[in-house]
Amino acid sequence: MKLKYGMIGGGNGAFIGDVHRRGAFLGGYANLVCGCFTRNPQKNQEAAQQWGVEDPSRVYKNYQEMAEAESQREDGIDFVAITTPNDTHYDIARLFLEKGIHVICDKPVTSTLEQAKDLKRIAQEKNLCFGVTYSYFGYAMVHQAREMIEAGKIGKIVYVTTEYPQDWLLLNLRDEETRKKMWRIDPARARGSLCTVDIGTHLEALIHAATGLTITKVLARFDYTVDDIPLETNSNVMLQLSNGASGNLWSSIVAVGQDADVRIRIYGTEGSLEWYHGKPGLLKYARLGEPVQYLAMNRDYNGADSLSMSHLPAGHPEGYYEAFGNIYERFCKDVIARQEGATEKKYDYPDIDYGIHGVRFVDACVESNEKGNVWITL
Amino acid sequence: MKLKYGMIGGGNGAFIGDVHRRGAFLGGYANLVCGCFTRNPQKNQEAAQQWGVEDPSRVYKNYQEMAEAESQREDGIDFVAITTPNDTHYDIARLFLEKGIHVICDKPVTSTLEQAKDLKRIAQEKNLCFGVTYSYFGYAMVHQAREMIEAGKIGKIVYVTTEYPQDWLLLNLRDEETRKKMWRIDPARARGSLCTVDIGTHLEALIHAATGLTITKVLARFDYTVDDIPLETNSNVMLQLSNGASGNLWSSIVAVGQDADVRIRIYGTEGSLEWYHGKPGLLKYARLGEPVQYLAMNRDYNGADSLSMSHLPAGHPEGYYEAFGNIYERFCKDVIARQEGATEKKYDYPDIDYGIHGVRFVDACVESNEKGNVWITL
Amino acid sequence: MKLKYGMIGGGNGAFIGDVHRRGAFLGGYANLVCGCFTRNPQKNQEAAQQWGVEDPSRVYKNYQEMAEAESQREDGIDFVAITTPNDTHYDIARLFLEKGIHVICDKPVTSTLEQAKDLKRIAQEKNLCFGVTYSYFGYAMVHQAREMIEAGKIGKIVYVTTEYPQDWLLLNLRDEETRKKMWRIDPARARGSLCTVDIGTHLEALIHAATGLTITKVLARFDYTVDDIPLETNSNVMLQLSNGASGNLWSSIVAVGQDADVRIRIYGTEGSLEWYHGKPGLLKYARLGEPVQYLAMNRDYNGADSLSMSHLPAGHPEGYYEAFGNIYERFCKDVIARQEGATEKKYDYPDIDYGIHGVRFVDACVESNEKGNVWITL
Amino acid sequence: MKLKYGMIGGGNGAFIGDVHRRGAFLGGYANLVCGCFTRNPQKNQEAAQQWGVEDPSRVYKNYQEMAEAESQREDGIDFVAITTPNDTHYDIARLFLEKGIHVICDKPVTSTLEQAKDLKRIAQEKNLCFGVTYSYFGYAMVHQAREMIEAGKIGKIVYVTTEYPQDWLLLNLRDEETRKKMWRIDPARARGSLCTVDIGTHLEALIHAATGLTITKVLARFDYTVDDIPLETNSNVMLQLSNGASGNLWSSIVAVGQDADVRIRIYGTEGSLEWYHGKPGLLKYARLGEPVQYLAMNRDYNGADSLSMSHLPAGHPEGYYEAFGNIYERFCKDVIARQEGATEKKYDYPDIDYGIHGVRFVDACVESNEKGNVWITL
Repeated sequence: MKLKYGMIGGGNGAFIGDVHRRGAFLGGYANLVCGCFTRNPQKNQEAAQQWGVEDPSRVYKNYQEMAEAESQREDGIDFVAITTPNDTHYDIARLFLEKGIHVICDKPVTSTLEQAKDLKRIAQEKNLCFGVTYSYFGYAMVHQAREMIEAGKIGKIVYVTTEYPQDWLLLNLRDEETRKKMWRIDPARARGSLCTVDIGTHLEALIHAATGLTITKVLARFDYTVDDIPLETNSNVMLQLSNGASGNLWSSIVAVGQDADVRIRIYGTEGSLEWYHGKPGLLKYARLGEPVQYLAMNRDYNGADSLSMSHLPAGHPEGYYEAFGNIYERFCKDVIARQEGATEKKYDYPDIDYGIHGVRFVDACVESNEKGNVWITL
Repeated sequence: MKLKYGMIGGGNGAFIGDVHRRGAFLGGYANLVCGCFTRNPQKNQEAAQQWGVEDPSRVYKNYQEMAEAESQREDGIDFVAITTPNDTHYDIARLFLEKGIHVICDKPVTSTLEQAKDLKRIAQEKNLCFGVTYSYFGYAMVHQAREMIEAGKIGKIVYVTTEYPQDWLLLNLRDEETRKKMWRIDPARARGSLCTVDIGTHLEALIHAATGLTITKVLARFDYTVDDIPLETNSNVMLQLSNGASGNLWSSIVAVGQDADVRIRIYGTEGSLEWYHGKPGLLKYARLGEPVQYLAMNRDYNGADSLSMSHLPAGHPEGYYEAFGNIYERFCKDVIARQEGATEKKYDYPDIDYGIHGVRFVDACVESNEKGNVWITL
Repeated sequence: MKLKYGMIGGGNGAFIGDVHRRGAFLGGYANLVCGCFTRNPQKNQEAAQQWGVEDPSRVYKNYQEMAEAESQREDGIDFVAITTPNDTHYDIARLFLEKGIHVICDKPVTSTLEQAKDLKRIAQEKNLCFGVTYSYFGYAMVHQAREMIEAGKIGKIVYVTTEYPQDWLLLNLRDEETRKKMWRIDPARARGSLCTVDIGTHLEALIHAATGLTITKVLARFDYTVDDIPLETNSNVMLQLSNGASGNLWSSIVAVGQDADVRIRIYGTEGSLEWYHGKPGLLKYARLGEPVQYLAMNRDYNGADSLSMSHLPAGHPEGYYEAFGNIYERFCKDVIARQEGATEKKYDYPDIDYGIHGVRFVDACVESNEKGNVWITL
Repeated sequence: MKLKYGMIGGGNGAFIGDVHRRGAFLGGYANLVCGCFTRNPQKNQEAAQQWGVEDPSRVYKNYQEMAEAESQREDGIDFVAITTPNDTHYDIARLFLEKGIHVICDKPVTSTLEQAKDLKRIAQEKNLCFGVTYSYFGYAMVHQAREMIEAGKIGKIVYVTTEYPQDWLLLNLRDEETRKKMWRIDPARARGSLCTVDIGTHLEALIHAATGLTITKVLARFDYTVDDIPLETNSNVMLQLSNGASGNLWSSIVAVGQDADVRIRIYGTEGSLEWYHGKPGLLKYARLGEPVQYLAMNRDYNGADSLSMSHLPAGHPEGYYEAFGNIYERFCKDVIARQEGATEKKYDYPDIDYGIHGVRFVDACVESNEKGNVWITL
């Protein structure tokens, strides 16, 4: 436990706060020592206690106070984890960066592209790490795909299709109280996108993590399937990728019966790869004219990058917490490297560039849809 | 075995001829009594013998001769099955219709929309049945989906996504001899489409069979992934459906490792349905907030239409031949009904209207792609 | 269509009669020309008509009359298919054999071992073919397993486990009328076994078909889970196999929610194979330390025996009818070979030796269970 | 973080040590403050540092010293986690109990039944908690099964079959160095069982966790498939369960291609349940004559016990660490309850009674096999 960190957000019952906490712990590199978990003072203290913050004076009433106090302490935090609603990320992140504190933040990193670029600028100036927790980056077999692609195992990529169907919106709408708390469906806070910014963006990052390619053009069509929500709840995006290949990206928060069923299929001239969140420890691999194979996590035949993200013997499931743990582990190692003198990123994890591209992707989709489903260049 | 039929094509080793033969037999309504299976005289006789055509004089050297002879015989055929390359369907079908013989024909029914409409006109004038063998119509659980949708089990449909990934083209290209025989990749015969017309069109028919909806608009993007084939080998189509819902349709003949993996997923406001060709006897059904269900073919809880297409106890797989058999059975019953005096279609099977819509769909996709991926109204 | 055959049974609505009919047709070697489908005269004629028996005089009122008449005709049948209840097989089969007619019969071939051996003796004396329709023999990927084992792909077999869970009994018991018709649950006709003789015996044959091994010892435990049925409805059998390996065989007709879920898993020193009836066109193959593979039916990498039983392009499902068709095709070819002078079996299909071993297996299981679950040598 | 604990073992690279560490953390109830992780002093300190033990003086050179020192400190540990080889558990556990420290220990809890009973006696006398980490108890959907059974959802249980095929032994044998370190294959330490005691025992506990039933009789056959290992590597056990139902239990460490593929299927008179470790967040449920259902973890329709073990939204995989975490959480809560005055177990987790029954089960299997596969009463 070489690092100390604090958390902003996470105390209002959203599951993602606990995911950050568990993820930060798993690798054994970071200890939670302070936080501002919610603006409700009592819940703030409760969350702190539950999560092992030992010193009550390090439970802060707002993030500004925390940034100020922690940056002054000799034993102040090494980094801050930001798990608040999307439209608050920028102000918080900027302040901590300015105080010289490394930042790891939930996605999307900011509301506007300018904000994201601004954060990048500050982080660079101050030689600080900036992680963005695109969760699916953290799965070992996503990296196995990447390693196999780079080794030429599927030839040249010609087509990528990825999807994230889910039904959380419909479930949550059934309860009036839950609905009221959903800041995501408030058009004023949403900047023109609900489904795409919430989960479509995960797929954008996943394509990059799994293939190394980036999206260069989009043609998006948004579907508005819930009567009184003027934001898209289902989203289809045709893609052009940086190597000239085509792609397709579908996300939905109204797909009844689907449970975070993230899937990516990558087709090359000689083979294909498929990864599915429902069985995250497997990677399907086919070569033209040969039997389909399923690679299992943490078997010897996997690549070094994939193995570095695998902890249990094959067949013992690792899941979402462990994926987060893998991202946190690399982020922490990078923070340590900077503390030991590094002046650039030494470990591979989703950083502010992932964040910038994520914002740009959503912006382009919104624009494409508004203009009548035309191609927009990123 | 109440009906006699003849076959055009099927004698050059294409698997689809035998599928027609077996399909026609399964229901027990039709006996193969004549044919022109190939223009090679010896192979023509061999095919006839292998398939049980007992009278060698009814093995014809071309379809014209067969139409002439059979229409003159007192015991001439009741219907003809056409399994030749796509661009020959029209001439053959028209001739037999004109001779007063019912027709069942492979898809796509013709090369142009005008031709398809022409066939419809003649068939109507002559009170003849015209079947088009959109194979996936023949699966019992596709009809179970339709019955459940009509009973309101998933609410209002908001989104449909369907796909047909396959790798046959890449496999066939590996062999020079095989390649030479592929009339499908000859641009002169293809009318601007390879993948969409070959398998995408199956999905178009499947959407209609499974949901009752029709496609009203398309926005298509064709991918040309094989260097020296100037036809699309991968095809993405955004859809608008007749009830206002959106959809997506993907077909590929270069998807390495995929085996006729037809899938359709139908999302409604209250539930969803999914059918997958890899396990055709199952239908996945989810209702919002309830456990996902898998309905199995030929269980009592299925609907009448689905049960009418099921023959074996649950768990005993029925496959592609049986799907064809179901289409043939209904077509044969309809032919019998006409012979007994009916003046309109009495049974549900893919008919010339399916054929017409299929041609229109491909035309619209070609146009959309050519114009730069814009919406085209069907 | 080189052969003519007749059928005994199949006219009372049992699905298996139609399976024989369709199976016999598929390969294109046999034409149904006569039969005694049921003792009910009207239903007998109806079945004949439905199934294409053209000559009403060849619809017989009992099997004796049919054996007599057909053996006298110049154009009499080449073989008979027997699909009646188990305890009637022997008398019927013996009579047709004695009349010089080849026989194909449902399993179990007879009620006693002596009867089975007697049939073998007569068939040998008369140089007649005797097929027993162990359905699972007919699946192409079962043969692929056999070919891979023989090629040493999994090393030495050390363990085989196979299962057939089903719930048909419980479903049928819910309806009083159905229950009355179930000759299988009549202890007087059952010879001490219900589940094992009905479906366990399929697994015994499957082990042999898939591995080439035979069962040499059994230790069986029968479970009597339905109150008023004094026959086992669930059956566990520990096995010793002919190469010294161990095995396990489980069958159940009270396994709620299971649909003919036949599965066999074969473990060797270097690899393993698994075949599952729910996806019969796949074969799972693992080699120690390598990714698991799934071989798909009718792909080029399969063996000659497997390919000879495959008809459709990979991914187009073939099912239970086609499995029956494969058995019939080989049986028919063997009949033709005898007619052309052969004096021994020339094709591989389940024959009277399969039948004999099946009866012996059930007898040994009954004895083992009665003696308190002790090892019985076959 | 209300509790402090120490660990014995875990520092030699065995994965299970880290599983305990992560498991103990997840619920947020316990902090690792001391340990004796290995007898190698340097590795001992390294493990301590890596796992966040802040005080080097609490890294002990043997367990005796640790028990002594920690029981003397005012801020000594609340409980100890024992993750050493099986045959060392007893001495360690007894010592800590005698010092008044709660114990959580890996399975099997001891080498002999007497030892296990002895531990129970001491724990009772001292009012101490004793947990045994039967990992599969910790999966939420195992508890969902239990809750549904208790609510009568499948009627009366008539048959249970469970299996744990794995190939770790064969993989490890390939490397001479690895082989040397495998204390499990040393007959002197193994007490007559390798596979059954290593993984078969997990199934025994799983049956109890999932159904509430206990095993009352066994008939075991051990297979010795690896030439120079005189211990069973594959194990089949026929079961009689406490309600009179039958069962079957198969474990194997030579099942090539299998990855901890634990599965349990429970058949009742009205329904069935199936849980599979490969998709641990699902529970298959069938009712007679109705479509099969799949319940997903953390959906509202699940029971309270299952929900209490679920942390992430449905579809976000939780795995093996989280299962351990669930066991630890309940154990920790029980320790806290004792500290707050409870004089008996207040939370449900696998305790010393699970441990006792596990030892008894293995003993009975060994005896049954040695006596020639006869029934042994537990």
